[in-house]
Amino acid sequence: MTRPERPTINDVARRAGVSKGTVSFALNGRPGVAEETRQRILDAARDLGWTPSHQARALSVSRAFAVGLVLAREPELLGADPFFPAFIAGVERTLSDRGQALVLQVVPEAEEEAGYRRLAADKRVDGVFLLDLRVADPRIALLEELGLPAVTIARPDGPSGFPAVLVDDRPGIAAAVRHLIELGHRRIAHVAGPAQFRHGQVRREAWAQTLAEAGLPATACVEADFSAAGGARATRQLLENDRPTAIVYANDLMAIAGLSVAQELGIVVPGQLSITGFDNTDLAAYVSPPLTTVRTDPYLWGRAAADALLQSIEGGTVDDVPVPPAQLVVRASTAPSLPSV
Amino acid sequence: MTRPERPTINDVARRAGVSKGTVSFALNGRPGVAEETRQRILDAARDLGWTPSHQARALSVSRAFAVGLVLAREPELLGADPFFPAFIAGVERTLSDRGQALVLQVVPEAEEEAGYRRLAADKRVDGVFLLDLRVADPRIALLEELGLPAVTIARPDGPSGFPAVLVDDRPGIAAAVRHLIELGHRRIAHVAGPAQFRHGQVRREAWAQTLAEAGLPATACVEADFSAAGGARATRQLLENDRPTAIVYANDLMAIAGLSVAQELGIVVPGQLSITGFDNTDLAAYVSPPLTTVRTDPYLWGRAAADALLQSIEGGTVDDVPVPPAQLVVRASTAPSLPSV
Repeated sequence: MTRPERPTINDVARRAGVSKGTVSFALNGRPGVAEETRQRILDAARDLGWTPSHQARALSVSRAFAVGLVLAREPELLGADPFFPAFIAGVERTLSDRGQALVLQVVPEAEEEAGYRRLAADKRVDGVFLLDLRVADPRIALLEELGLPAVTIARPDGPSGFPAVLVDDRPGIAAAVRHLIELGHRRIAHVAGPAQFRHGQVRREAWAQTLAEAGLPATACVEADFSAAGGARATRQLLENDRPTAIVYANDLMAIAGLSVAQELGIVVPGQLSITGFDNTDLAAYVSPPLTTVRTDPYLWGRAAADALLQSIEGGTVDDVPVPPAQLVVRASTAPSLPSV
Repeated sequence: MTRPERPTINDVARRAGVSKGTVSFALNGRPGVAEETRQRILDAARDLGWTPSHQARALSVSRAFAVGLVLAREPELLGADPFFPAFIAGVERTLSDRGQALVLQVVPEAEEEAGYRRLAADKRVDGVFLLDLRVADPRIALLEELGLPAVTIARPDGPSGFPAVLVDDRPGIAAAVRHLIELGHRRIAHVAGPAQFRHGQVRREAWAQTLAEAGLPATACVEADFSAAGGARATRQLLENDRPTAIVYANDLMAIAGLSVAQELGIVVPGQLSITGFDNTDLAAYVSPPLTTVRTDPYLWGRAAADALLQSIEGGTVDDVPVPPAQLVVRASTAPSLPSV
């Protein structure tokens, strides 16, 4: 038998008496390989003169040891939306523990499909996260066509063979609205996020539906852009007209800015105006009055999504991942509605 | 002449009548290649049956078309520190325009060196950003040894052959302290960031030095952790003892939390206590009173760092990149000091 000119991962596996998969696991420092086995594999690789370069590894076992996140948003939004840093932190917690990297690619919306095609063709990643789901999202079929494992954040509205992290903003908003109704509020306004984002849309729908269920009108809604400046503008608009007794904001940033606007106008919160946020950001408990808001956990979603994705990549069958529902956190920015004068 | 069994990028370049570099540029959708030339290259590649897979490309032209960021921090901090999302947004703005990806790897501190070695050995990235510089940072020599192009954020204190984005927090803090001194304040406290972070340390030193230059004591300093909770605690501690007339915070998050603490204690801001922040976060202008703070621009630093890194990777000589100095933004949380009673 002639020795092949260049040893392959198969040769290393055979010499070490383990499977090809174990070799790749061992060489990537992943858990589940006994130290003795790892050493035997390293010895075998050295004896054969096999270099476990990334390309060699990727070509032989078809693994990039990285996962991808393609974002068709303006890069600026990475900084403005508290969801991303927390989600990415959660993803990195899991990836870091498993020795994997995250490939982050921000593309113009028109090049989104090309972005996924390139990641797949380049074998730069072993799987991807699918965020910012859209109605009848065409990326589901695209990724199935590309054979790229994926995990969606929230369940898509159409058919999908990919596991989903079952994020749902609705119960949190509904709880905030019901809390205000129980306090006697009847004119409950909403400062919404942009309608083109599903989470902006879903929160607005939950506000409207909960009001409708209580027989209350859902007319006072101003769409803003999730920013402090947008929240301040929307609040001024709402307070100038037929003033509501409560405002449900689609995020904390807009709510905290709205709180200051009310205070500047001499409107006492919560005495004359109750307000609620969404996100339970770091600051929510430390503004004055502390903000009643909805606690979500994008960090946990990131961890769960990365766990599910790595499991998918390793060929496991992965079910949808339930996550704790968003929870209302009642603080001091909400109070009983005063009878109208 | 026998046709090689597998065409190389050289064959494609020869057939299309362009350089190897132009082929790689064209196939990566980067600017500077005329559409007609790009089409000729694509035709040549198709005629030769050459597949521009990522690995093939990387092996033949030794380019990963990605840059790396290794962070030896707890992943959780990605969400807590407003610097990261903004910096990464700036990096992605440049990368997105140039068709490049960002490989983000969060590692335990003990595995930081291994992280860089792996990125280099795997040829997963063409260069890296160096953040969170430390005193006599050993990574400078490591990256020089690895031959990996790099850009440092701020100039290191030791010798470095890499270009630096000349970030300096000192002038901003000094301006805030001088502004308070001009308003008549003499007991100016500081709520600092953690001393193990260079930016925590640098801001504290700038506060102390500016006071020293004015002949004022720099004794009232409480170290916190850049979080709202930490800022609130530190503020309580400062206000309970020999109360200062002004507090300079190392970031906005702590300052905004401190503002609420003062208000809860019945201390009027700015009448009885002036406060300043650092970062000019989205919310700073929308709290009540609006926060006097220091405007920095990590988004711009990210763009500048990515531009410099890509230029280094392409073999250019890159000078240090000056960035606009941090600037004091005077709003309503600072006012003249009242005479002591």
